[in-house]
Amino acid sequence: MTIPQPYLMFLGDVPDQLAAKTAAGIVDWRPECCLGQIRLPGCKADLGIADLSIGEAVAKGARTLVVGVVNAGGVLPDHWIGVIVAAIEAGLDVASGLHTKLGSVPAIAEAAARHGRQLFDVRHSDQHFATGKGVKRTGHRLLTVGTDCSVGKKYTVLALEKEMRSRGMDADFCATGQTGVFISGRGVAIDAVVADFIAGAAEWLSPAAAPNHWDLIEGQGSLYHPSFSGVTMGLLHGAQPDLFVVCHEPTRTKMRGVERPLPSIQEVIDLTVRCGQITNPAIQPLGIAVNTHAYGDAEARAYLDMVSTAHGLPATDPIRFGVATLVDALQAKFPGSAA
Amino acid sequence: MTIPQPYLMFLGDVPDQLAAKTAAGIVDWRPECCLGQIRLPGCKADLGIADLSIGEAVAKGARTLVVGVVNAGGVLPDHWIGVIVAAIEAGLDVASGLHTKLGSVPAIAEAAARHGRQLFDVRHSDQHFATGKGVKRTGHRLLTVGTDCSVGKKYTVLALEKEMRSRGMDADFCATGQTGVFISGRGVAIDAVVADFIAGAAEWLSPAAAPNHWDLIEGQGSLYHPSFSGVTMGLLHGAQPDLFVVCHEPTRTKMRGVERPLPSIQEVIDLTVRCGQITNPAIQPLGIAVNTHAYGDAEARAYLDMVSTAHGLPATDPIRFGVATLVDALQAKFPGSAA
Repeated sequence: MTIPQPYLMFLGDVPDQLAAKTAAGIVDWRPECCLGQIRLPGCKADLGIADLSIGEAVAKGARTLVVGVVNAGGVLPDHWIGVIVAAIEAGLDVASGLHTKLGSVPAIAEAAARHGRQLFDVRHSDQHFATGKGVKRTGHRLLTVGTDCSVGKKYTVLALEKEMRSRGMDADFCATGQTGVFISGRGVAIDAVVADFIAGAAEWLSPAAAPNHWDLIEGQGSLYHPSFSGVTMGLLHGAQPDLFVVCHEPTRTKMRGVERPLPSIQEVIDLTVRCGQITNPAIQPLGIAVNTHAYGDAEARAYLDMVSTAHGLPATDPIRFGVATLVDALQAKFPGSAA
Repeated sequence: MTIPQPYLMFLGDVPDQLAAKTAAGIVDWRPECCLGQIRLPGCKADLGIADLSIGEAVAKGARTLVVGVVNAGGVLPDHWIGVIVAAIEAGLDVASGLHTKLGSVPAIAEAAARHGRQLFDVRHSDQHFATGKGVKRTGHRLLTVGTDCSVGKKYTVLALEKEMRSRGMDADFCATGQTGVFISGRGVAIDAVVADFIAGAAEWLSPAAAPNHWDLIEGQGSLYHPSFSGVTMGLLHGAQPDLFVVCHEPTRTKMRGVERPLPSIQEVIDLTVRCGQITNPAIQPLGIAVNTHAYGDAEARAYLDMVSTAHGLPATDPIRFGVATLVDALQAKFPGSAA
């Protein structure tokens, strides 16, 4: 899906800031794409951007109303429908991350049909993909992988995109999850794809490109996660990465949602290389991205030094210390991609 | 899904025997569940079982009308609808392997609602699964894996079920594909499940069981297949097999549907053990099942001897020579499951 930007962010009347986490992530990474917010009376979330009416947003060039909030059960409350229909009538497309499909609400479906507007349900995938072909594509690809879910895979590729672009390199973030799709305006919630088409969706996401172009692909799950390893494997095979970055959270004692210890960074490197070689024999690790939020600065630096030495790879916390060392290493390995 | 048996097989007016391949597979493996067939004028397929009217089938105890054929585009022709509605009105449930969902045809949906009958679309999965938990379950599990798609994974587990039951062992075939679900009356077309729930569906399919019970789980795809490895990985992690059988077709020069050579049997053994240990540290190979249809008898035996010696495992062609050697080896490894 390709969601037209810029956005008007709709927060409904959610009860706290956490419910607007997706919307806040979009504003963090694409402030230039978020023209303003529209909130209903009682809304307790605030993105820190201008409150706009639908008319004001349209006048400023908004293209899509984004429902980037979660609420109990993921359903769309009846009293939000009026704003959505008004946005459609004013010429906006609508994109939602709720479980409830926009098109399943008759008033919204009818308004969209009447005004020829698009409805995007980022959490669902109605898109048809081919099965993966495994044919080598031109251009370069980098994938983030992890010792677990929720260890910074999206943040790391977004930080890499920012750093690489700041150096004049040709790099695109490729989104595989809901928040990422909103940020990018394009992508696929790959965990919502029918199982047969995981690799095919990843191939669609990062098509053949210019020789020095980098697709920076948001990883999902972990090859070691008993719930989601199938998604991770299909994504790895479809992405055909030349490089991967291992993301890790050192204080976590068990994998998210299951009773299982985390694998080591080395185990993830080894299994990723072994499986990744099936569609890209040249796959290699680029570095390690660690979420060190639980550590003080000195402790964080000491941990990163230890990890870097142990694996012979650059290690950083992208939030705390940036990803310049990772991009330095990428440019050293692929001198042609240096701008 | 659990499809009530026995079946009345509906073949429509398909133009050749190949179009009834699924139905023929059901009759091969569960003749006692297929009371008869019903065919429209011009039908060129024949299952070699009694032609029955709907009334005759109901009188014999039929529970479900099975649409076990493929036709161009997988759609349901309008002139088949009358028979399906009549079957519903006579008290039968209906199960279909077509792309067209039964419930999307208004006349069928209305008849089913009016008579309280169930509609099963084996190719689709509307069933909701939990995500995989990775918790060890009681009872034993065996999974077939392969060097490619379509190398005998379903046939091998069905043959194992037959042989184990003939020895008085407690063993159930667990279906993960369309034909298998019809044969078993239960199962899930795992390639049609949403990606996040592959492992969870496999856990649902083979729940905790008696200590000496064996679930014999139909494998799908290959860890080495660039289109379907995600399904294979999720199935492996959800199935938590104690034993696996590697299925192979020695004359195939490239993997089905892609430009890629087959992995070796040893590569499949190694990667299956490595990945399978994540949810079952005790996973081990039981043997090798080879489709030797391209060879003469002497050549087939020589090939199986060579493969068996090379890997230190029993090797057989289940169609040609049966699976007694595999079950002998299973009983030797798990003496408690010998009846």
